[in-house]
Amino acid sequence: MNHKEANNKNNRRKFLQYLGVAAASCTVASCNNDEASNANTSKQQNSQQTFNWKMVTTWPKNFPGLGTGAEYLAQIIKEMSGGRLNIKVYGAGEIVPAFEIFDAVAAETAEMGHGSAYYWKGKNPALQFFSTVPFGMTANEMNAWLYHGGGMELWQRAYQPFGLVPMAAGNTMVQMGGWFNKEINSVEDLQGLKMRIPGLGGEVLRLAGGTPVNVPGGDLFVSLQKGVIDATEWVGPYNDLAFGLYKAAKYYYSPGWHEPGTTLECFVNEKAFNSLPQDLQAIVRNASRVANQNMMLEYVARNNDALVSLINEHNVDVREFPADVIEKLRELSAQVVADVVGSDPFAQEIYDSYQGFLAKSKAWHDLSERAYLNLR
Amino acid sequence: MNHKEANNKNNRRKFLQYLGVAAASCTVASCNNDEASNANTSKQQNSQQTFNWKMVTTWPKNFPGLGTGAEYLAQIIKEMSGGRLNIKVYGAGEIVPAFEIFDAVAAETAEMGHGSAYYWKGKNPALQFFSTVPFGMTANEMNAWLYHGGGMELWQRAYQPFGLVPMAAGNTMVQMGGWFNKEINSVEDLQGLKMRIPGLGGEVLRLAGGTPVNVPGGDLFVSLQKGVIDATEWVGPYNDLAFGLYKAAKYYYSPGWHEPGTTLECFVNEKAFNSLPQDLQAIVRNASRVANQNMMLEYVARNNDALVSLINEHNVDVREFPADVIEKLRELSAQVVADVVGSDPFAQEIYDSYQGFLAKSKAWHDLSERAYLNLR
Repeated sequence: MNHKEANNKNNRRKFLQYLGVAAASCTVASCNNDEASNANTSKQQNSQQTFNWKMVTTWPKNFPGLGTGAEYLAQIIKEMSGGRLNIKVYGAGEIVPAFEIFDAVAAETAEMGHGSAYYWKGKNPALQFFSTVPFGMTANEMNAWLYHGGGMELWQRAYQPFGLVPMAAGNTMVQMGGWFNKEINSVEDLQGLKMRIPGLGGEVLRLAGGTPVNVPGGDLFVSLQKGVIDATEWVGPYNDLAFGLYKAAKYYYSPGWHEPGTTLECFVNEKAFNSLPQDLQAIVRNASRVANQNMMLEYVARNNDALVSLINEHNVDVREFPADVIEKLRELSAQVVADVVGSDPFAQEIYDSYQGFLAKSKAWHDLSERAYLNLR
Repeated sequence: MNHKEANNKNNRRKFLQYLGVAAASCTVASCNNDEASNANTSKQQNSQQTFNWKMVTTWPKNFPGLGTGAEYLAQIIKEMSGGRLNIKVYGAGEIVPAFEIFDAVAAETAEMGHGSAYYWKGKNPALQFFSTVPFGMTANEMNAWLYHGGGMELWQRAYQPFGLVPMAAGNTMVQMGGWFNKEINSVEDLQGLKMRIPGLGGEVLRLAGGTPVNVPGGDLFVSLQKGVIDATEWVGPYNDLAFGLYKAAKYYYSPGWHEPGTTLECFVNEKAFNSLPQDLQAIVRNASRVANQNMMLEYVARNNDALVSLINEHNVDVREFPADVIEKLRELSAQVVADVVGSDPFAQEIYDSYQGFLAKSKAWHDLSERAYLNLR
């Protein structure tokens, strides 16, 4: 389904919703099987109804941080709803492959999905801004933009043509820069490199002369070990240790200039979401905010132990990208962003909002968080 | 009520809870007025019961970020509970004065309170660790320690003798260093200074030769204007602008070495909390996590505009503390912490947990967040 087809589908849905609103004026007894009208009947009438949903994910079942983050979201929804909304979580490939969950939820194969927006750049390149931007916002800034800077409204507009309601449901904070089997001493060392790196960061690698590929997390280790790819980034020490990436690459570079605070998402089929009574809608929205924060805090709590293990037990060579490599990547990142926003007025609108917010939060953080981290 | 009295009171409560558990084995119909037994009856039996609670706060009613943060917490609890748990928020002084809310909730005058743990250092100096520590954790680290590093369990133990259940319900992130009417060029400039600065930071000022006082936020401006105090810190640009502190002091110093990520709290009377069915308990716990994150994100979104207004419209002179002042304050901070932990084995246990977590998160953040903020 492309963007135009999605828009047509959405227009049909809007028309059906309009009918649903009209139908709600009949007696509840005569139309309580009408899914659209449920949103318009009172909370009390729905409050004991039980909903059983499926959540499809781009992660291996129960993968630390990401897969367990999806399970955590389902669990707190169940607890807060007193068992009225039960969500069964499926790993990548259990119902649909990792990169088909967006279409699957749009098509109502499942009610909910858990992934990250840059996986859907084939639908619309602008969606990548809702994951992360190279040299862009940190996790706290990204969340502040989404909840207090207009970002969430833009994201909702971006997913609306597909009949999906997006929510932020996790964040990695600043990632690591990736696993390599050679030193990166200049940008030339990236030429010819076939590397797993998604989103805008991947396009930066392409401009630097490399070949970005996207591989689901669960296939990463084998791809790297078999030489299908030369290098990869994933998340950070806690997650990268779990995949055993240190067995297939020697150098581990920091920091993740390409993913400084990546938002993980859950999205809900709009019709399914509208069928929930208002209290359950509020529970889903707030649970996603708890899950969003919780995943990031789990990384804060776990990454250093994993890093120590990688260095001391697995002899990983941790390096920092040289300053001139960073400068060149910064220039290429600006080009990549310019290409995306030049192609589409909505992409320009999203980026203007993103960049305007970032300029202010950066100025404040230079005086507060950054100044403090440098002096403590 | 001192610590010993609170312990005695708690032993009585435990005994009453024991009776409550025993009573729950009678039929529900015969004991459904027993508050303690409600926790043991099933969710379904309680699910339509409505609870009307009071929340007392240390903030002026609807004060930006802090007071509105308490209102936001009440609002999302109401939405998620479908109106089954309604909490009316009171500003400082409406029912009880700001610094009496801890005792008021312990005494069941209100079911809930909203403040910060360092306000209760008179009960037990160790409680200050649950607000913030000079040169200690940032907001993300503090939350990661609380939720994933054992901090919350310690906080629960610390409030348990008072019959209170603590939750983190807000964070300021790195604060500003305060408002002064003279330049701070050396630590000697702090001598003789009467400054509003709470918690451990206040004790550092005392060692530096100043006089720390605590004044509720709502009284700050008048105290500073009338010369009752010579200097003050409060939170950061967004909050400090709202109090008009720029009208009573010229120099605004950064960064807030004394409050690098202060946790705001809500606490619930234990008996009231146990009277809720499990789904409402889950809603209160998760709502506090949403409110915790939301307050901090509001500061990220609002502080820079306020700072620009302070500088451009109100001619505030923003300065950074000189490096040798910071070094001296760091030494004094270590002394203050040593005094607190030396007095009490439980304080030592809390601090060991805090400091152990910080050492790891700092090592990871030096490679990730800090490295990234310095290069972007």
